[in-house]
Amino acid sequence: MSRYKLTLEYDGTAFAGYQVQPNKRTVQSELEDALFKIYGEKVATFASGRTDAGVHALGAVVHFDAPKQIKNNIQDAINSFLPADLKVVRVETVSDNFDARFSSKKKTYGYKFYLCRYERPLFANKALRVNDNIDIEKMKQACKYLVGKHDFTSFVARKSGKTDFVREIYAAQITDTNDGCLMFKISGNGFLYNMVRIIMGTLLFVGSGKFEPEDLKNIIDAKDRKKAGKTVPPYGLYLLSVDYDE
Amino acid sequence: MSRYKLTLEYDGTAFAGYQVQPNKRTVQSELEDALFKIYGEKVATFASGRTDAGVHALGAVVHFDAPKQIKNNIQDAINSFLPADLKVVRVETVSDNFDARFSSKKKTYGYKFYLCRYERPLFANKALRVNDNIDIEKMKQACKYLVGKHDFTSFVARKSGKTDFVREIYAAQITDTNDGCLMFKISGNGFLYNMVRIIMGTLLFVGSGKFEPEDLKNIIDAKDRKKAGKTVPPYGLYLLSVDYDE
Repeated sequence: MSRYKLTLEYDGTAFAGYQVQPNKRTVQSELEDALFKIYGEKVATFASGRTDAGVHALGAVVHFDAPKQIKNNIQDAINSFLPADLKVVRVETVSDNFDARFSSKKKTYGYKFYLCRYERPLFANKALRVNDNIDIEKMKQACKYLVGKHDFTSFVARKSGKTDFVREIYAAQITDTNDGCLMFKISGNGFLYNMVRIIMGTLLFVGSGKFEPEDLKNIIDAKDRKKAGKTVPPYGLYLLSVDYDE
Repeated sequence: MSRYKLTLEYDGTAFAGYQVQPNKRTVQSELEDALFKIYGEKVATFASGRTDAGVHALGAVVHFDAPKQIKNNIQDAINSFLPADLKVVRVETVSDNFDARFSSKKKTYGYKFYLCRYERPLFANKALRVNDNIDIEKMKQACKYLVGKHDFTSFVARKSGKTDFVREIYAAQITDTNDGCLMFKISGNGFLYNMVRIIMGTLLFVGSGKFEPEDLKNIIDAKDRKKAGKTVPPYGLYLLSVDYDE
């Protein structure tokens, strides 16, 4: 029996998120339907994490144990059964103790946005429009307060049984995507529910002058969701990559 | 009475092309519906040219004569009545002898494509997938044969009454779009029906080794559609800009 690691790209627009839900079109259900067609039996898949409805991925990771060997190239076989908005980017054989979720060392998310007076047709469902009077330099300054090991209680949407809100952020920066957008990129050892979208909303409050960059420190220290900014919409969010030791 | 020049951006995916057609959703009909709502009467619009169903625009140009003055900012007013996949990028007041079609001096189109073994979900309806064994350098070499004044009969889909197939190409090149795609950009004094899509299909035959770069010269000289390559699909095509003297 071989364990496979799949790297997925998807356009989240028409999915009700990653995880299987009854009577909903999800990434996981489309993937498991494709594996069923290939192997003739139900194959369980295990993801690095879930993404919400509308959130995109360039490098989501999933593992599964193949019930048997197939003759064809696995990537081509799976892709032939997947819809146009979900594809396998890469297939790797991994050891039996590899786990897409528990073996991950680093995750990187990106939040794409652009500055404009009107909604750009060609960025619909792919990036957030922001008014062009925003101060990007101040947002960049605010990013440095995110780096390090912090309790991110102020940036979690609901606590749902969790007790540990400490996460380590390795890098946070705003870069130009060269296609007319900007991207807030953040990587860390893990992220809480809606954490990136709340951090992004908080950075936008810095950009609009409602907060100062150094306020980020106080907002983190407050451990209070009400001190942070708004939750930005899902369609600007991209799961860019999940990194592992092996 | 003021004449206005509008620059439009649209995602062509859900439009049956630019021009009004009975019972079809077109760019022109959406624009004229918006103008009707603003002015309370039918306002005729005149475009720099038509685009086919699925073709996108970043800089299509239209002019119209406003039947009266309005108090609000015209760009905001029109955009508020336009759907998400069509917006006015810029509004300029022009002289009464400006004509979006007949005053234009240069048009620039881009054809977006990417090299991959599988269809990329995040490029769906926005760029053409091409197999990654293609020779981009040879395609770049072929581009230089397009520049200049030529009879482009070999690159026209249907002649429909036209007798003059001579067009002047000012520039043709393949560049990196920095988002994982390549773009074939071509500018000239005018383009025939499907001309850019047939040229692109011919360049892809160069890239795959079916033609050599210097064959472009013979294909142009033949004045025979059957000598050129296939017509590539509309969704990779972008009307990038239309330039005027004023």
